[in-house]
Amino acid sequence: METSVRQRSKKAGLPPGTMVHIGEPATEPASLSVIRYGPDIFSEHRSVPPETLDTIDVSQGVTWIHIDGVHDLSLIEKIGATFNLHTLLLEDIVNTRQRPKVEDYNDHLYIVMKTFDFDHGRFGLREEQVSFILGPGYVISLEEKKGDIYEPVRERLRQGRGKIRSMGADFLVYSLIDAVVDSYFSLVEGLGDNLETLEALLVSRIPTHETITTIHRLRRNINGFRGQLWPTRELLSTLERSAPSPVLADHIYTYFRDVHDHVLQIMDTIELLRESLSGMLDLYLSRISNRLNEIMKVLTVIATIFMPLTFIAGIYGMNFKYMPELSWPYGYYCALAFMGTVSLTMILYFRKKKWL
Amino acid sequence: METSVRQRSKKAGLPPGTMVHIGEPATEPASLSVIRYGPDIFSEHRSVPPETLDTIDVSQGVTWIHIDGVHDLSLIEKIGATFNLHTLLLEDIVNTRQRPKVEDYNDHLYIVMKTFDFDHGRFGLREEQVSFILGPGYVISLEEKKGDIYEPVRERLRQGRGKIRSMGADFLVYSLIDAVVDSYFSLVEGLGDNLETLEALLVSRIPTHETITTIHRLRRNINGFRGQLWPTRELLSTLERSAPSPVLADHIYTYFRDVHDHVLQIMDTIELLRESLSGMLDLYLSRISNRLNEIMKVLTVIATIFMPLTFIAGIYGMNFKYMPELSWPYGYYCALAFMGTVSLTMILYFRKKKWL
Amino acid sequence: METSVRQRSKKAGLPPGTMVHIGEPATEPASLSVIRYGPDIFSEHRSVPPETLDTIDVSQGVTWIHIDGVHDLSLIEKIGATFNLHTLLLEDIVNTRQRPKVEDYNDHLYIVMKTFDFDHGRFGLREEQVSFILGPGYVISLEEKKGDIYEPVRERLRQGRGKIRSMGADFLVYSLIDAVVDSYFSLVEGLGDNLETLEALLVSRIPTHETITTIHRLRRNINGFRGQLWPTRELLSTLERSAPSPVLADHIYTYFRDVHDHVLQIMDTIELLRESLSGMLDLYLSRISNRLNEIMKVLTVIATIFMPLTFIAGIYGMNFKYMPELSWPYGYYCALAFMGTVSLTMILYFRKKKWL
Amino acid sequence: METSVRQRSKKAGLPPGTMVHIGEPATEPASLSVIRYGPDIFSEHRSVPPETLDTIDVSQGVTWIHIDGVHDLSLIEKIGATFNLHTLLLEDIVNTRQRPKVEDYNDHLYIVMKTFDFDHGRFGLREEQVSFILGPGYVISLEEKKGDIYEPVRERLRQGRGKIRSMGADFLVYSLIDAVVDSYFSLVEGLGDNLETLEALLVSRIPTHETITTIHRLRRNINGFRGQLWPTRELLSTLERSAPSPVLADHIYTYFRDVHDHVLQIMDTIELLRESLSGMLDLYLSRISNRLNEIMKVLTVIATIFMPLTFIAGIYGMNFKYMPELSWPYGYYCALAFMGTVSLTMILYFRKKKWL
Amino acid sequence: METSVRQRSKKAGLPPGTMVHIGEPATEPASLSVIRYGPDIFSEHRSVPPETLDTIDVSQGVTWIHIDGVHDLSLIEKIGATFNLHTLLLEDIVNTRQRPKVEDYNDHLYIVMKTFDFDHGRFGLREEQVSFILGPGYVISLEEKKGDIYEPVRERLRQGRGKIRSMGADFLVYSLIDAVVDSYFSLVEGLGDNLETLEALLVSRIPTHETITTIHRLRRNINGFRGQLWPTRELLSTLERSAPSPVLADHIYTYFRDVHDHVLQIMDTIELLRESLSGMLDLYLSRISNRLNEIMKVLTVIATIFMPLTFIAGIYGMNFKYMPELSWPYGYYCALAFMGTVSLTMILYFRKKKWL
Repeated sequence: METSVRQRSKKAGLPPGTMVHIGEPATEPASLSVIRYGPDIFSEHRSVPPETLDTIDVSQGVTWIHIDGVHDLSLIEKIGATFNLHTLLLEDIVNTRQRPKVEDYNDHLYIVMKTFDFDHGRFGLREEQVSFILGPGYVISLEEKKGDIYEPVRERLRQGRGKIRSMGADFLVYSLIDAVVDSYFSLVEGLGDNLETLEALLVSRIPTHETITTIHRLRRNINGFRGQLWPTRELLSTLERSAPSPVLADHIYTYFRDVHDHVLQIMDTIELLRESLSGMLDLYLSRISNRLNEIMKVLTVIATIFMPLTFIAGIYGMNFKYMPELSWPYGYYCALAFMGTVSLTMILYFRKKKWL
Repeated sequence: METSVRQRSKKAGLPPGTMVHIGEPATEPASLSVIRYGPDIFSEHRSVPPETLDTIDVSQGVTWIHIDGVHDLSLIEKIGATFNLHTLLLEDIVNTRQRPKVEDYNDHLYIVMKTFDFDHGRFGLREEQVSFILGPGYVISLEEKKGDIYEPVRERLRQGRGKIRSMGADFLVYSLIDAVVDSYFSLVEGLGDNLETLEALLVSRIPTHETITTIHRLRRNINGFRGQLWPTRELLSTLERSAPSPVLADHIYTYFRDVHDHVLQIMDTIELLRESLSGMLDLYLSRISNRLNEIMKVLTVIATIFMPLTFIAGIYGMNFKYMPELSWPYGYYCALAFMGTVSLTMILYFRKKKWL
Repeated sequence: METSVRQRSKKAGLPPGTMVHIGEPATEPASLSVIRYGPDIFSEHRSVPPETLDTIDVSQGVTWIHIDGVHDLSLIEKIGATFNLHTLLLEDIVNTRQRPKVEDYNDHLYIVMKTFDFDHGRFGLREEQVSFILGPGYVISLEEKKGDIYEPVRERLRQGRGKIRSMGADFLVYSLIDAVVDSYFSLVEGLGDNLETLEALLVSRIPTHETITTIHRLRRNINGFRGQLWPTRELLSTLERSAPSPVLADHIYTYFRDVHDHVLQIMDTIELLRESLSGMLDLYLSRISNRLNEIMKVLTVIATIFMPLTFIAGIYGMNFKYMPELSWPYGYYCALAFMGTVSLTMILYFRKKKWL
Repeated sequence: METSVRQRSKKAGLPPGTMVHIGEPATEPASLSVIRYGPDIFSEHRSVPPETLDTIDVSQGVTWIHIDGVHDLSLIEKIGATFNLHTLLLEDIVNTRQRPKVEDYNDHLYIVMKTFDFDHGRFGLREEQVSFILGPGYVISLEEKKGDIYEPVRERLRQGRGKIRSMGADFLVYSLIDAVVDSYFSLVEGLGDNLETLEALLVSRIPTHETITTIHRLRRNINGFRGQLWPTRELLSTLERSAPSPVLADHIYTYFRDVHDHVLQIMDTIELLRESLSGMLDLYLSRISNRLNEIMKVLTVIATIFMPLTFIAGIYGMNFKYMPELSWPYGYYCALAFMGTVSLTMILYFRKKKWL
Repeated sequence: METSVRQRSKKAGLPPGTMVHIGEPATEPASLSVIRYGPDIFSEHRSVPPETLDTIDVSQGVTWIHIDGVHDLSLIEKIGATFNLHTLLLEDIVNTRQRPKVEDYNDHLYIVMKTFDFDHGRFGLREEQVSFILGPGYVISLEEKKGDIYEPVRERLRQGRGKIRSMGADFLVYSLIDAVVDSYFSLVEGLGDNLETLEALLVSRIPTHETITTIHRLRRNINGFRGQLWPTRELLSTLERSAPSPVLADHIYTYFRDVHDHVLQIMDTIELLRESLSGMLDLYLSRISNRLNEIMKVLTVIATIFMPLTFIAGIYGMNFKYMPELSWPYGYYCALAFMGTVSLTMILYFRKKKWL
């Protein structure tokens, strides 16, 4: 997650508004799809050639233009020219290190959000930038890589389920944002599962150095995700406040409030996970200390029992000429018995002290 | 408590406003009861069949519709149709992972709160969602499971105690909210008792690994509860500010201020509990350290006394031909006396250092 | 201090406005005293029978009604009836678990504050609730137990010192609040003294488990006091802002600002005490660690000196037939000398390492 | 610093506005000096007798009255009577435990600030209260003890350097505040030097108990100073906002902004010092832990080498009749060689583990 | 970084507005360059003699005056006289210990920022102050030392790339601020690299005292940088809010919002780095504790195996006359076998406990 500004220095010294693709290098060419719909109409075109962009007519119904892959600068430029977008906006689209934000360009809104991929095995979190441009009658959505996050929305449009077809472009943007936020829920569930696994481990097994590394990595993921949630929340409250506007109808307010609420819910959970994690660190450190105590107890018990015994044996190993005990017929057995008594006393003492 | 977003991912991809029951699976069928009252009238109907909902007339007196069990989607839908509720509101009712909140739908208010069940044995906290819809002349209250939290309110209505019968629907909602907040007081008392037990344990007995696990679990409960208190407080200050409104009379303000005050009081106490708990963690860690010091002192004392003694015994166990002491008549006793002197010196030294 | 919500659950389920005494059970009956004064008049009546309350005329001068003991519900009810007080206000008076607050009931103000008793021996803090009702021309003050905190104000009234007799009821309330806040100064001094004693102990003596318990207890007191200071501060800034009002003259603003200032000053000091205390915890833990280091040094020095010596003695205790040294005439003395050399070397090595 | 409320309880029970000197007892009598200046005029009178206060005419030019020593209550009272000051203001002047603040008395401002004396040897911080009263055409400045902090301002006035002589009384107050804030810079430099010395010590030498005591004391000073900076900052932003006023010209705003900026700068540095100090505590604790590890390594190495050796010697010290090795001609040398091998192996093992 | 107020005390006692150069002593003489441009015109003059400043005509196009080296007080004074700048502004220019800030002097803006140099080897951060004066038609930029941070802007002006030549002086200031903020990205990348190196080290190798020193130093750099970011952010949001103004066109708002966004992004990353670093401290301390546990395990295992063995050998080394085992033909071998059994048992015990 710390890499969120990586590569950014590539842009140093370039004039503002210069498009430079910053992000993971793309493996597939960018592709363009167009959906147009209204209460009674629906058409879908995949792999639309960029040249035909000019011919798109956004005056009727709602037009949804979706682009997979923001590394194709000429395509983005074409979009910019067609819809008359600010150069700073185009620059932000191709630079995938943005913070979640909403920017008001009077006749259109520009919204940046993040989606996350959680790799359960390596406790790693990969983020991807998605952005939306909401203009009068059209929505342009952009993704770094081909994903299936909007597929349910498309399906609803195709089948005319819900009221989405009878609503405007603002409702489409709301649906897309809702889809993104919905994907956070499963991420949070994944993080929660990781935490529970970790806790079970902490309680049942002796913690190793790996445990703390895992705690460290989880914390980093949670912090990274949380760092994106804060501006996402701000984004949504800005949207809530900015309705009505030329591109946002009045009734859309209720919907944005609902998504806002979801984000707040996720943030609450993330805070609990954070506190839980810091509690686990305490648990871990306490177990290490306890373990040291236990090790030292073993050492002390052994030393305390055998040191006096060895000393007694040492006494009767002395070579003095006149040592009356040595010539007693039962001297040896007396000595053994004495040693036994000493060690028993010690053991009872430790029992009483609850060390054994 | 971290499970507050669990199951939520079941909804990913569904159109907004789709009702999906999210929460613990219900064991009993949902049930509906209706109370109607006014200064002079009172009628109560239990186990009302949902079909008769249409026939309820809310124009006279105050109608209180109570529903146990939000898993019966058809019932909720029926309610929504009868009282003309927003689909997002219905969605929130059946999704029991909401944050406490109040939403203003112009002619009705939607309020979500949480009740908590504290399992004293396992230090576990279980939360349940309750919600209220306050419209002109009617209140709809919803609970996840049959509970007895509102029973005192019902009793007051039945017996006409207090001024509740002569007040409007807003006062009923206030009474229900007050009942919920009152239930928090006993929860906080329970948490406080747990803490005191824990502290007594920490002071009197040697702490074990279980101690820290208990601290950890208590902290989780407190954090979980606290996480719900913050939005509850917000909810109440919103209510306070929003009066007067179509459904809230002006004089209700004083009452909401009173509940608000109770929540603040609970929050103060929770903060103190939190600080107390973190103080206990310090106590615990300090005791572990102290204990290690003690163990090491025992080891050091034993080693320091017996190592020199064993060494002296070792000297007179050497087999040199010419060792004058060995043939002294009282050599053995001299050696024993010397050993005694050495160990006594050591003991006195440790006494002086306050180790013994 | 965590007990601040104790007993509160006694009220669960009762109608709002029901008076239930919550607090320490009273040992003495409640008593009522009335002082009336003006620039030229002064009369004082102690142990006034509650029945005569109706006959009190508040139209001339300022009337100060003081009540010791809020457990006498019939008395409080009588007051409420006489001065036309809200049932929620009466409920708050007898429930001594309120937060400090000011409530505006249009024609009268209701103010709740706390006084504290510091038990120097047991580091314990006991809080008591005091409240004031400021109406036009009268002040009602209530205390849990008979105290002498307002005695200086009474004395000033009796002797006509300062300008108190020529001012209105608002100035009397200010004087009473000032008396309460003044009592905090000596509490803070007491806490400060405790801290200094603790610090001197930490520096001069070896810390024991008691030290940390004392730190813990002091911290709890400071946190408990601080938890009441925050709302007290809020209370005063509300008072400052609310002047002028029907019961607060304009010039009283300057006086409330002064008390507000005192509270800020106390809060600053409390913050410093808190930081100091957390510094002492660090000191304490560091001393424990240092002590462990010292203990281990003693053990290591002893072991490092005697282990090689014992080994040498062990060698010459072996029973091989051909061990030339054993038959050397000065073998024994050589061995002793060798041992001496080894132990001296060790001692010098530890000296160099600054362990001795 | 915790003593900031000390002696304050002396005032408990006195009527508000009663002057009681709270602070260090004075050693010298209070003294009064008067400077009057304008673009063309300048006169300076030292040791002015208080009786002549009435005769001072503030209608022409700017009059600066400076008082060293606030313990002379009759002098302060005289000032109060001459300039018609509120009794609460006079009370604040003689009580040197105020927070930095500005109070607006309509036709004059009352400003309280703190100066600090840093005792480099004992890491001690002593604070002194200074206050200013800014009225139309006059400034009264008060100090606890004779100091030279305003000497540069006086010198500038005497020599007519800068524009101070051509500006009003507000500029004089600004100059005095600036002089006070300037003195903070050298305090911060002193604290910074202390920290650097401490850090050098921490890196080069083995930390002792004194190190942590020093850290503790430095932290207390920094916290104490910081506690005064916050209200100082507030004071300055209030001044900035309150211009223009009857006593503050419009153009003075730019100057107050400048001092405000200096205070912000000092606060930034103090925050960095605080973080640095807490980093040093970590350094210190880590060194202690490292040291324990080292001590334990020495012990373990010694024990691990000599225990097996002593055991081998013990074996050949047994008195069994039939022990073939004992009668081997080179048995002794074999045994020694075996012991050497064992100890060499151990040493190599520890080398590999980087313990030696 | 703590040195940010160093040398500042040089100014104590001087009249406000007195220029004193505070900062690193300059090694080169100050130099002055002038660029004038417009949509169609461009001229650049390097090493302009200060005497010709009066002759500069700023009425046509945009004039950019750049000064390397702020230690030349006469040059700064000349600038001040030519452009009619406030003495406090000039004082701020030569005092290189300012916080980032923007000050509005009605007809011109004064902006202070910081650039940073990161010395990768010594983990050191050096800051340099840059400032801008934006007046109608002209920009004056000042740097402490000759740097190449603005070179890309100059190059764009020379070649007429982008729209910079067709925009006003406000766009030039924006471009310079953008260049400064762009330089932060590579600093943050550098800090991130350092952290990653550190983390790799922490995971793979045994941490030494140097590790903590490095953590400490990195933290100091991050805190120092962060301390400058906060006011930088404030600066930019002030600029955003202050447009339009006499010197800021309305459309410049969008550009400042963009830079503001970059700073927010950097701050997010810095927060993540901070959290990461504190996680590393935990990792480090945990490794030290783990290591102690390991050392103690080795000691305990060795002692637990050899102490009983030595004791057994000690028993058969006793010189009692009647010890039957001693005369058994296979007594010696039995004893050895017994010892072997004991040590094997111990080893198996430790295996089971996972100590070996």
